[in-house]
Amino acid sequence: MIGDEIYEFCGVLWPINRSITGEGVRTSLEKIQSLVPELQIRSIKSGSQVFDWVVPKEWMIREAWIKDPSGKVICDFKRNNLHVVGYSVPVNKKMLLSELDAHLFSLREIPDAVPYVTSYYEENWGFCISHNERLALQDGEYEVFIDSALFDGSLNFGEIYFQGDTHHEVFLSTYICHPSMANNELSGVAVLTFIAKYLAELTHRKYSYRIVFVPETIGSIAYLSQNIETMKANIFAGFNLTCIGDDRSYSYLPSRNGNTYSDKLVQHVLRHLDKDYKSYSWNDRGSDERQYCAPGIDLPVASIMRTKYGEYQEYHTSYDTLGGVVTASGLAGGYNAVRQVLTIIERNQIPIVDILGEPQMGRRDLYPALSKQKMNTQLRNMMNVISYSDGTNTLLEIAEKCNIPAWEVLPIIEQLASHDVVKTKSAFVTKCEDN
Amino acid sequence: MIGDEIYEFCGVLWPINRSITGEGVRTSLEKIQSLVPELQIRSIKSGSQVFDWVVPKEWMIREAWIKDPSGKVICDFKRNNLHVVGYSVPVNKKMLLSELDAHLFSLREIPDAVPYVTSYYEENWGFCISHNERLALQDGEYEVFIDSALFDGSLNFGEIYFQGDTHHEVFLSTYICHPSMANNELSGVAVLTFIAKYLAELTHRKYSYRIVFVPETIGSIAYLSQNIETMKANIFAGFNLTCIGDDRSYSYLPSRNGNTYSDKLVQHVLRHLDKDYKSYSWNDRGSDERQYCAPGIDLPVASIMRTKYGEYQEYHTSYDTLGGVVTASGLAGGYNAVRQVLTIIERNQIPIVDILGEPQMGRRDLYPALSKQKMNTQLRNMMNVISYSDGTNTLLEIAEKCNIPAWEVLPIIEQLASHDVVKTKSAFVTKCEDN
Amino acid sequence: MIGDEIYEFCGVLWPINRSITGEGVRTSLEKIQSLVPELQIRSIKSGSQVFDWVVPKEWMIREAWIKDPSGKVICDFKRNNLHVVGYSVPVNKKMLLSELDAHLFSLREIPDAVPYVTSYYEENWGFCISHNERLALQDGEYEVFIDSALFDGSLNFGEIYFQGDTHHEVFLSTYICHPSMANNELSGVAVLTFIAKYLAELTHRKYSYRIVFVPETIGSIAYLSQNIETMKANIFAGFNLTCIGDDRSYSYLPSRNGNTYSDKLVQHVLRHLDKDYKSYSWNDRGSDERQYCAPGIDLPVASIMRTKYGEYQEYHTSYDTLGGVVTASGLAGGYNAVRQVLTIIERNQIPIVDILGEPQMGRRDLYPALSKQKMNTQLRNMMNVISYSDGTNTLLEIAEKCNIPAWEVLPIIEQLASHDVVKTKSAFVTKCEDN
Repeated sequence: MIGDEIYEFCGVLWPINRSITGEGVRTSLEKIQSLVPELQIRSIKSGSQVFDWVVPKEWMIREAWIKDPSGKVICDFKRNNLHVVGYSVPVNKKMLLSELDAHLFSLREIPDAVPYVTSYYEENWGFCISHNERLALQDGEYEVFIDSALFDGSLNFGEIYFQGDTHHEVFLSTYICHPSMANNELSGVAVLTFIAKYLAELTHRKYSYRIVFVPETIGSIAYLSQNIETMKANIFAGFNLTCIGDDRSYSYLPSRNGNTYSDKLVQHVLRHLDKDYKSYSWNDRGSDERQYCAPGIDLPVASIMRTKYGEYQEYHTSYDTLGGVVTASGLAGGYNAVRQVLTIIERNQIPIVDILGEPQMGRRDLYPALSKQKMNTQLRNMMNVISYSDGTNTLLEIAEKCNIPAWEVLPIIEQLASHDVVKTKSAFVTKCEDN
Repeated sequence: MIGDEIYEFCGVLWPINRSITGEGVRTSLEKIQSLVPELQIRSIKSGSQVFDWVVPKEWMIREAWIKDPSGKVICDFKRNNLHVVGYSVPVNKKMLLSELDAHLFSLREIPDAVPYVTSYYEENWGFCISHNERLALQDGEYEVFIDSALFDGSLNFGEIYFQGDTHHEVFLSTYICHPSMANNELSGVAVLTFIAKYLAELTHRKYSYRIVFVPETIGSIAYLSQNIETMKANIFAGFNLTCIGDDRSYSYLPSRNGNTYSDKLVQHVLRHLDKDYKSYSWNDRGSDERQYCAPGIDLPVASIMRTKYGEYQEYHTSYDTLGGVVTASGLAGGYNAVRQVLTIIERNQIPIVDILGEPQMGRRDLYPALSKQKMNTQLRNMMNVISYSDGTNTLLEIAEKCNIPAWEVLPIIEQLASHDVVKTKSAFVTKCEDN
Repeated sequence: MIGDEIYEFCGVLWPINRSITGEGVRTSLEKIQSLVPELQIRSIKSGSQVFDWVVPKEWMIREAWIKDPSGKVICDFKRNNLHVVGYSVPVNKKMLLSELDAHLFSLREIPDAVPYVTSYYEENWGFCISHNERLALQDGEYEVFIDSALFDGSLNFGEIYFQGDTHHEVFLSTYICHPSMANNELSGVAVLTFIAKYLAELTHRKYSYRIVFVPETIGSIAYLSQNIETMKANIFAGFNLTCIGDDRSYSYLPSRNGNTYSDKLVQHVLRHLDKDYKSYSWNDRGSDERQYCAPGIDLPVASIMRTKYGEYQEYHTSYDTLGGVVTASGLAGGYNAVRQVLTIIERNQIPIVDILGEPQMGRRDLYPALSKQKMNTQLRNMMNVISYSDGTNTLLEIAEKCNIPAWEVLPIIEQLASHDVVKTKSAFVTKCEDN
């Protein structure tokens, strides 16, 4: 059900032509705003220095196509916005196929797919075309037309801040700059929108939440350059959401540190959702954790994914579609993984049993009166939870030691607390000390 | 030979009807006393508060049986004390099979075995019967008779304290509350009795020894509640002996900490007795280590077992017999494992070679004069022992690093000491610091 | 090419009859001196106390042979210096085969090889013979002649000291005491000679180098006894070179500590030269690391080998020959491994990127302008190096984290430094703190 809602929202965002700047980003952010009014749309002027980078000019595009020697229109941007290389400069010119060829991009390995190509920081123009279509091109004169513009405008991103009981923050990020890419973009945007909606509707938040929708790389760098001090002071856990909408696998990519609270949370949740979840190394990175975990920034940001970018054949091609890669149940699975992570954060606590020796469960109606051949699993878990409730272990650590998911430990702690077997301490357990 | 003696003593204890309280426990303790006069028989009154628990009433039973509709006596306590559910209240009543059925216990999976069932903390009565016998029961009126009593009496346990050169204590515990269970009770009682006998006969003890024979759970809780301060102050190593009389495997269950001196000792000894010994996790626990290692108690108690409770088919049934499960060689193996652990504790030491460079073994007649193609194993071990005798490693650590059992390292250290190659320091090496 | 030069030098040393003392050692050292004039030839008098040992008498031998009953000369020292047991006392006697037999040494397992046997510390005499030749000996009277002498002379060794910018020293050792053993002696001597030559020719050395050619065991003990204070104060990395000339495998034997900078260096280099390199344990030791890492000496000395002593069939027999075991390419591989280790030591450094967020590689011409389907390996490595250049990681640690050899990291750091992306700190990175 939640999967269907998220899937539907992907459909709303799909036709909008996004790039790292421009109208498409703004329109997309407005769509998110319609679901989560707390979203603020921010902008930074072209030419602004952000760390080592300069915010590029804004790009707009109205039309782009090629006419082949017979006058047939191919690579029409209107039919598929992947046909034009992102940030293409204007062109209006006739040329022979031999000249055009240097501006064509196709994939020999997936000959019917249109690849996704951009040229943000070097002025260029080009068209993306299926390899089979390219092979069929006839010699002769081609008319090439790109009605685009690069001008001093701005870079936009969306930001949400939910205040909690404490200034300690959880950070959530996804990127919003790819046109018509379902898993490698919209899944992250849509899942994070619904996570934001969920957080907005919580009656109570122990922690504060900082959520951003940024153009990849330049957007996260720009955002960091404006907020680094606050972020370093407050963020104790953070997650990058990307490629989180297919139903093929669950994947985790660590923070640079590799051993932060965020890393432990993601590994715990994914392991219990899918014992075969894939665990990558920092050396496999490729999204905004590159910025969030860079030397000197060092935020505790781990990535939660279904099938990682670059690890599925449709990645960065016209085949990365809703239905083709992304499914409602895939999105629901990704959403659920993030929800479980956030639940553990909000509900993390340190239970303490201050009875010496095992509590007598029988007189509390927690223990079968007749001894059994084997303790059943439920009782076993309960006794294990008690055994680790020595005041040194958090919910997450107890779950790890009991080898059961934290969401099964929580009701046990509640039941034990209601029978006065355990008390819980520490309103705020951020485990910052591990970072 | 030692196995035969221990086996014989099991036979002495076998017919005595034990429960967590009552005459059977006292008689059993007296039998131990006849071998180890240092044993003190202690008692705690019914109704005493011990931590979270209350010492239950004492149970006595004289007779128990069922007469079937044809007048035939079945489930006769006199023939097999497992037939009556432990702590059954008195009953003297006629009833139809349908009513009786709720008080019958049998095992579908082992249809000819009588299970072992108790109901210590909820008043009830019942009979245990083989599943095949139960299936053959005819409809009709049954006469049920249990001549038992629950009354204000006491809970008993046995305690031995052997004074050593230091107040640092080794703790040894087993439980004494099961009727007619060979491996899951008598093996522990009998092996520990002979270990106590061995310790009593030692001409010299470096450490003190605290040995208890307690009814499981309530007994260890009661004992802890009376002795916790002294125990926490003095015990640096402890072992729970259970299911230590079969010849099928060796097993270890860790302390809650998992990394205490006791854990290292048991793992070292069992690994060298049987490289395939089974290592369990704290989550698999089920005996008095549950109390000894509970939060706030935290004694360094590891379990030494042959085949663990719950892991052999005959466990908690009439099939757990002398001969059927427990054997003389099984008991000898268990006894030997404990002896080796205690020997390492008593003989633990830190040898130091204060010669710089390798000692010249040849002129000490410790080295073959002609160089050999390959150093033989014995010389290799000796050179390795020297190499680790740098003043930082104990006997146990050297044995681990040389990858040979400590009982092979000891004679090497003796030989080296007699040739003035090593000196040993530290009369008392308790390695408490690891706990 | 370097392999051929080293191989040729082995040939120069091959015919010289070496033992732990005597003319053969001095002549061999003079041959090294002819290539590395910095070599100093040192001597210690017979009878000197060196730690637990006494420097033995000097041994000289002119002639040794046996005449069989038919008058045929066998076991002629002139034909093969392995025929006489090292340190044999003079003998000139006729005896029956039955008496002679106790003085003959042969190898049943390799019946055509002559074994290598010595008797340094117990006066004896003997001959080594192939097992097949021994079996063919006829009964009768044999004439045995050894023209040798044991006298108060000296023990010799070679020492080179190269001054660097700092007193921190790298230590390199090999042994020089075996006659006619190609891999288990000459490979180490010859490779270390060419390593010394390389160091001599360096225009600049950051660190100082202490290089010794010592008779095994007694030589390293003698050297240590004279230099232990200076060595402990200055040596931060050290390597024992032995059996480093065959082409069958690469091997590493750790220091006693096992985790020193030297250990990490050897493991890193060998892993990247040969992912199947063999890693031994300290318990497998058998060369001068026994002295260098003995308790109280504890120098950080790891062994670099091709196929370890005792692990190839020809070891300590007449089959350990140039050509038979040692090859030019085997020597070149060993030389190269040592060179790489020394290069990492000299070039070790801590690069720091002080740009926040990822540097913009594109405007530095370090990044492909068009986004690619997958980052290529080269760029990936560069980004990884940047990512670990946070001021806490050395060259070696970065190489380990990037999972590429340090010699591929070095040019990347150079390129990044030339584009002002990283700076490097710490002229001297000895990582002594790990030892």
